[in-house]
Amino acid sequence: MPSPITLRQARREDVAAIVRLLADDALGAGREVVADPPPAAYFEAFDKVDRDPRNLLAVAEDGSGAVVGTLQMTFIPGLSNQGAELALIEAVRVASSLRGQGLGQVMIAWAMDEARRRGCRNIELLSHNSRTDAQRFYERLGFARSHVGMRRAL
Amino acid sequence: MPSPITLRQARREDVAAIVRLLADDALGAGREVVADPPPAAYFEAFDKVDRDPRNLLAVAEDGSGAVVGTLQMTFIPGLSNQGAELALIEAVRVASSLRGQGLGQVMIAWAMDEARRRGCRNIELLSHNSRTDAQRFYERLGFARSHVGMRRAL
Repeated sequence: MPSPITLRQARREDVAAIVRLLADDALGAGREVVADPPPAAYFEAFDKVDRDPRNLLAVAEDGSGAVVGTLQMTFIPGLSNQGAELALIEAVRVASSLRGQGLGQVMIAWAMDEARRRGCRNIELLSHNSRTDAQRFYERLGFARSHVGMRRAL
Repeated sequence: MPSPITLRQARREDVAAIVRLLADDALGAGREVVADPPPAAYFEAFDKVDRDPRNLLAVAEDGSGAVVGTLQMTFIPGLSNQGAELALIEAVRVASSLRGQGLGQVMIAWAMDEARRRGCRNIELLSHNSRTDAQRFYERLGFARSHVGMRRAL
């Protein structure tokens, strides 16, 4: 794994690097627009996430300060499970040049710690059916394939 | 279907009825505590949801004002999909005496309208593997079984 990895909350100047990571992916390639500077919609979305105390956009940076991974967490209150809070993880990406070297595990362990610190009792995610490697990865980290993830466009 | 159904944001005085609905379920029965009054944790959770503009706890009431259904929505900002907002639906319950009469469809249609009104471009949910009837129901409403839903306790 590339020297010391630091996980931290994303800053506005990370937006271009995050968009590149989102696009550097079989599914993301067709969904994102990589331009310099990134389209304004990404900055508007960043500001919404950044202002919301129940959303946390994070980046992993290597020893040189380069952004090499990203993930987003949402901390969801609710009555179910006797009022237990739930953490949702989304938009997990590791730089393609660094996959398979343990960076994803460091990122998810960090996310689980963050969720515990905020009092969440469960953590969940949806993984596209085609991402079978990712599902095996999450199973190794203790996630069960307990649910069907369903989605529709609006 | 029971006469006119109204969907509305839940109020604090609905908490006991919502907890009964959450518990009136094969999985929920083992997770919830039904008492009169409900344990304080449910009211604390209600207050967190109620204060959060990105969470919406809703109830369906029948013509007599009885609470016969509930669901929660979370409106999640994010950079993915060019900054599109996502709606997550959770904790969907219909009173057992009214299942199979179209109430769930009214509730989910209402939720989709609400998500569109708030500018969300996709809506998603996790359905426990054991809820095969629910999954067929969501497929009829246009949801695809596109993802694996994964969860672990913290």
